Amino acid sequence: MLYEINEKALKLENEGKKIIRLNLGDPDMATPPEIVEAAYAAMKAGKTKYSSSYGELKLRQKLAEIHGVSAENVVIMPGSKWGVFASMYILLKGGGNVIIPTPYWTAYSLAAQSIGAETRLLRTELENKWEVDLEKLESLIDKNTKMIILNNPNNPTSKVMDDDTLDGVVEIADKKGVTVLSDEVYGTIAFAKTKSILEYDGNFRHILSTGFSKTFTMTGWRVGYIITNKPLVDKITKLNQITINNVPVFIQEAALKGLELQEQIATKIKKEYQERAVMATRMLSKAGLLFTNPDAPFYVFPKRPGLDSEKFTLNLLDKGVAVAPGTSFGDYREHFRISLTAPRNEIKAGIDTICEAL
Amino acid sequence: MLYEINEKALKLENEGKKIIRLNLGDPDMATPPEIVEAAYAAMKAGKTKYSSSYGELKLRQKLAEIHGVSAENVVIMPGSKWGVFASMYILLKGGGNVIIPTPYWTAYSLAAQSIGAETRLLRTELENKWEVDLEKLESLIDKNTKMIILNNPNNPTSKVMDDDTLDGVVEIADKKGVTVLSDEVYGTIAFAKTKSILEYDGNFRHILSTGFSKTFTMTGWRVGYIITNKPLVDKITKLNQITINNVPVFIQEAALKGLELQEQIATKIKKEYQERAVMATRMLSKAGLLFTNPDAPFYVFPKRPGLDSEKFTLNLLDKGVAVAPGTSFGDYREHFRISLTAPRNEIKAGIDTICEAL
Repeated sequence: MLYEINEKALKLENEGKKIIRLNLGDPDMATPPEIVEAAYAAMKAGKTKYSSSYGELKLRQKLAEIHGVSAENVVIMPGSKWGVFASMYILLKGGGNVIIPTPYWTAYSLAAQSIGAETRLLRTELENKWEVDLEKLESLIDKNTKMIILNNPNNPTSKVMDDDTLDGVVEIADKKGVTVLSDEVYGTIAFAKTKSILEYDGNFRHILSTGFSKTFTMTGWRVGYIITNKPLVDKITKLNQITINNVPVFIQEAALKGLELQEQIATKIKKEYQERAVMATRMLSKAGLLFTNPDAPFYVFPKRPGLDSEKFTLNLLDKGVAVAPGTSFGDYREHFRISLTAPRNEIKAGIDTICEAL
Repeated sequence: MLYEINEKALKLENEGKKIIRLNLGDPDMATPPEIVEAAYAAMKAGKTKYSSSYGELKLRQKLAEIHGVSAENVVIMPGSKWGVFASMYILLKGGGNVIIPTPYWTAYSLAAQSIGAETRLLRTELENKWEVDLEKLESLIDKNTKMIILNNPNNPTSKVMDDDTLDGVVEIADKKGVTVLSDEVYGTIAFAKTKSILEYDGNFRHILSTGFSKTFTMTGWRVGYIITNKPLVDKITKLNQITINNVPVFIQEAALKGLELQEQIATKIKKEYQERAVMATRMLSKAGLLFTNPDAPFYVFPKRPGLDSEKFTLNLLDKGVAVAPGTSFGDYREHFRISLTAPRNEIKAGIDTICEAL
């Protein structure tokens, strides 16, 4: 439904209709000009050749310094989506199953399906503040379980997992010999402190996957990275060698420039999104919708008991507002996802229309 | 050995030694400045967002026009290597085997191995002008054969397949229901007329994979494309959606600029490489080496009976010249590959050293 809504929105726009786009995780702001200029300077300097499938050493070193790891634990990927797919491909292609708490980004299960792995969904509920039930988690694990995927902060709920629960997940994973793949792509700009999988992991048994898209408004640039143990870094690099070869060096130079300006860029983005979130949640509360306050930018995932979110979403689109139905993130028919990736006046107008339509 | 030689060459360079690099297919020229400027203009215009996993319609339409097909048969890929992998992943991941004439680019068999497919090599020989034996080809096909990979013009021999042989390959493939994946990445700048797989293929039963790297000196940009039937284009696009998502739009704009200037750029590159090839082959002939004259830029693949090319290559590297041993392309111990991707004076000095070392 996510793609269907987006295509219908595009079609309506092409017909000349104004659509308020609250359906995608693609920020409305432009990539900071310093990052664009860094890419251009690198292109002009001839950084347009084949390069390492590990990524540029300079960028890996900078990331290693930021995360307090060694450069040999870092591999640069063309987007965190490729980071997720590549990790799953290596660990799951011989078969096995992967456990994914829901609501979830469906790219995970589509990847599992493509690779031929079984997906085991672990439902969480708004009523329990989206908390993972550790007993249920443990009961889903069997000898064929290879991976647990966490998305922390979560898309679509914008919930950060509390430290105790994360401790529990990692303890179970370690006990059972299962790898945690922690997708932390919204982590750097979260409003709440987000404990990284790296904080547990002296031996890098687990995998951090993240990217530059959200923090630096670089969605279309396709650059991210994995941090994990060296043997797995080497395997991922071998997969890179026979597939994507390398992320363009000029894009890696742009990412490096982003890291240099990280504090200033992330602070600005966080502030803007926090103001959007305050405004949006105030309006949604007033309208009697149920949700947890976002711990991270981008999404609110409100619930209206009895709602048929697919019907509602299609109907709303005819009124000029695009959001995503809850069913795009698992079995959440009464929810829908609002992306705060539009200017404030559009968010306000969009939520006004949503409240009327409800 | 290809990677080993390259890493040793880099190490020697880092130690301050001058190495003449005739070991890679990465042109010495820079990406034409018009292409760099097109990318920069697109970045500044905000073409830095998520975009279609099919590729930009404008670029697909332009490629469709060039190849005389419909835009729905074209999908944009982050490099032709990804084009090859994605095609193999879709057709071979359920098992089966793939037939590859040798000498060959080993990325093909590494991909097959990763996907879990069997590789069946079909040897060709310098003494038969690298011609594929059609009877042998047919005898290798069984009910599990899903694909035949052609690299036309070939890396490492720079041989263009003659039309009759290609006719025969396609006829056998059609009879047996096997898909031909034709990697034509050196095709546009070949010195000899190269018949494309598209010329046979009213119904797009087969797959053309190619890219912008070689024609436009855009190796590190990672942009290429596939032309095939719409159902397979859709499957590849679905794979793109869960892996690489999209090629950055500013890179697609750069590629489009390349196509606009294709005649002028390709003519210049062809002329330069033809002059390099004439010089190189004259020197190699004089030294008594055996080879077919290159039909395409980039490579010569000479033979010296009795040669141990791995030993020879390592030894040559100590003398300051990097080439690739024949064993990197299959069972070709008496051959080595010279890349003409260096300025003429370096090629001359390199071949002088090669002739002395022999």
